Amino acid sequence: MTLPRIVIERCHYLARCSQDAGAITRPFATDAMRCANELAGEWMREAGMAVRRDNVGNLIGRFEGIGDATLLLGSHLDSIRDAGKYDGPLGVNVAIAAVQRLHDQGRRLPFAIEVLGFADEEGLRFGSTYLGSRATAGTFDRADLDRVDADGVTMREAISAFGGDPDHLEDDRWQGGRLLGYCEVHIEQGPVLEERDLPVGVVSGIAAQERYSITFRGVAGHAGTVPMDRRHDALVAASLFIETAEGYAQWHEGLVATVGQLTVRPGAANVIPGEVTLTLDVRHAIDDELAVASSSLLAIASDIGKHRGIGVTTTKVSEHRAVRCDPLLVSLMSRAIADSGIPVAALASGAGHDAVAMSELTEVAMLFVRCKRGVSHNPAESVTTEDVAVAIDVLTRFLELLAAPTSA
Amino acid sequence: MTLPRIVIERCHYLARCSQDAGAITRPFATDAMRCANELAGEWMREAGMAVRRDNVGNLIGRFEGIGDATLLLGSHLDSIRDAGKYDGPLGVNVAIAAVQRLHDQGRRLPFAIEVLGFADEEGLRFGSTYLGSRATAGTFDRADLDRVDADGVTMREAISAFGGDPDHLEDDRWQGGRLLGYCEVHIEQGPVLEERDLPVGVVSGIAAQERYSITFRGVAGHAGTVPMDRRHDALVAASLFIETAEGYAQWHEGLVATVGQLTVRPGAANVIPGEVTLTLDVRHAIDDELAVASSSLLAIASDIGKHRGIGVTTTKVSEHRAVRCDPLLVSLMSRAIADSGIPVAALASGAGHDAVAMSELTEVAMLFVRCKRGVSHNPAESVTTEDVAVAIDVLTRFLELLAAPTSA
Repeated sequence: MTLPRIVIERCHYLARCSQDAGAITRPFATDAMRCANELAGEWMREAGMAVRRDNVGNLIGRFEGIGDATLLLGSHLDSIRDAGKYDGPLGVNVAIAAVQRLHDQGRRLPFAIEVLGFADEEGLRFGSTYLGSRATAGTFDRADLDRVDADGVTMREAISAFGGDPDHLEDDRWQGGRLLGYCEVHIEQGPVLEERDLPVGVVSGIAAQERYSITFRGVAGHAGTVPMDRRHDALVAASLFIETAEGYAQWHEGLVATVGQLTVRPGAANVIPGEVTLTLDVRHAIDDELAVASSSLLAIASDIGKHRGIGVTTTKVSEHRAVRCDPLLVSLMSRAIADSGIPVAALASGAGHDAVAMSELTEVAMLFVRCKRGVSHNPAESVTTEDVAVAIDVLTRFLELLAAPTSA
Repeated sequence: MTLPRIVIERCHYLARCSQDAGAITRPFATDAMRCANELAGEWMREAGMAVRRDNVGNLIGRFEGIGDATLLLGSHLDSIRDAGKYDGPLGVNVAIAAVQRLHDQGRRLPFAIEVLGFADEEGLRFGSTYLGSRATAGTFDRADLDRVDADGVTMREAISAFGGDPDHLEDDRWQGGRLLGYCEVHIEQGPVLEERDLPVGVVSGIAAQERYSITFRGVAGHAGTVPMDRRHDALVAASLFIETAEGYAQWHEGLVATVGQLTVRPGAANVIPGEVTLTLDVRHAIDDELAVASSSLLAIASDIGKHRGIGVTTTKVSEHRAVRCDPLLVSLMSRAIADSGIPVAALASGAGHDAVAMSELTEVAMLFVRCKRGVSHNPAESVTTEDVAVAIDVLTRFLELLAAPTSA
């Protein structure tokens, strides 16, 4: 069986490590994650790696090199609820496959490779993203240990029960000497590669992102008795905002703005909505552009409120700055793509990835793999064996170029 | 103590009959309703009435007259969750007060009066409105008996447990001979009387009403990776509809259109909404106007969907035709208002009332009482003792006019 086929099969095997029957749901520090770590650990050993885990629960396979430097590869092994098979596992398995190829050829590179299977990127269980990679990067926030899951279990308890020591998470920070960088293979989760008919693309950077909670407070009232011109309908105000936000984003190149959650109170068919709370997610590859867009959108919400006698309050829920992929790593990845006979396309990533957290530790790069119709966070996630073959080839070539950049 | 003050106090007493501590929640066939029926039954007896209950749980007090005809008065004793004190109880207590005045004066009218305290108008427990008045009108739908409440109790079981016989609900139909009509006093639940500085107004009719469930089906996707021009965002389409529906209603005199419930799926901050379901409530005093408005609004929803590549499905959830109040009763009520020294204002009721169900049995009329800021379905419901005094006077005068219409 060929390596690309093996990678696909392994993603299918991992899909069986789930806490839900009939769906893929693999939260942090659960039996489903233990199952995934055991499988991936076995595959790492087969590829000649020494396997260990750290306190937070990351799986780490080390393939020794000749020199003292280390290159980090990897992605995450946890999943959202009712996930697809490839978001996360593909990157871990392509990295293992590239090491397997070196191992099969009996080759050693002038640097060690560590393949990381991060314990929590999606944050399904505790609502806290990049848990695994933040531990590796040394930016784990100890306050997160007090978070509780839906069953009232604290993160501290969950880490202990999973076999880690929550009091020594700072030991998880990578400390193996000189780092060459972190490189992550991931499905694109968007439609761009498919539209350009390309199997892979190099990522130029990861978009800056801000998330807000916006509440519109109007006056609830009887749907039959309050005339239209007397209403302060919170949902109509919110609707105006949603529509305007879409228009604003459409007119600003590279900007995406999404209202993904919305709740209406009191939420009865015969009551005029008194209060609406919604989320606004805004992203742009350039920090300054994002800042301008966010403040404009919040001002629009506020103006709509003023115009309609509706109170508007906004809270910033989260933010992260744009991450620029390392120019040297990007140029090597681009050459690796070109050397594989594929036109080089550079994409900005609108989604966050472990590379965001890892950028605090070292230089980062990413290779995107085409996914069917751009669908992700969905059981319908799909990649082809042919595209996986290209990804393995490109990553292998990237390792060769990094090993001998001047001669390549 | 004056009668108006007693009426207000009795509404406060009834507020203590609740299944929630600290809030008024009085669902059909519960201990809270038993409490309300016991109190109101006592007040009816004090006013010289013979008191009974029927199978569905309506409380009925009969004040005998001289002739063979009967006039029905009343309103409902059940409530929504976290209700106000006056929606329903005010009408029952004003009716009892008017009878009390006759009783105190030792007067008998040429017709009997029956005061009805309906067992369920709001439909909180079983999602079925006008349960009590439909039983009285003989239009109770036996299929409703299989409805279950949130605890899995069927309506049939609830009626039995409350002391009624669910197999003989047809006996609840009013069968006491010639009827003069049904007259209901109720808070306005809207701001019109307050704006016109009037304590009461006569109702010309009850608006026709249609309720729809509309679903917008787009394509869910990652909020960071799908460019704006590739999206089929169900919530943006729904927002366009909500805004357009408001505009449409504003430009059509007498029309109200409300989207009161809205749910987004999957409903995550970082996922483009794939599906939105909302309710549309449309009302107009004229059946034909409502029909035109509803079909226009549904066509707008459909057009928005076509324009945006979003599937739109609509389901009619409920409808009732406009109810015209009886011209004779309306003219007597108008004279009673004028005789009380109040300018006569005729209002269409946008809210449904027991009078809707009762119109299947007999002629109906309604008297609206001003409520503070038009607030209803809310603990902040408020009426003044002065306005209640006017309502009692007007209802008393109405009874006199009905007793001797030619001489009055």
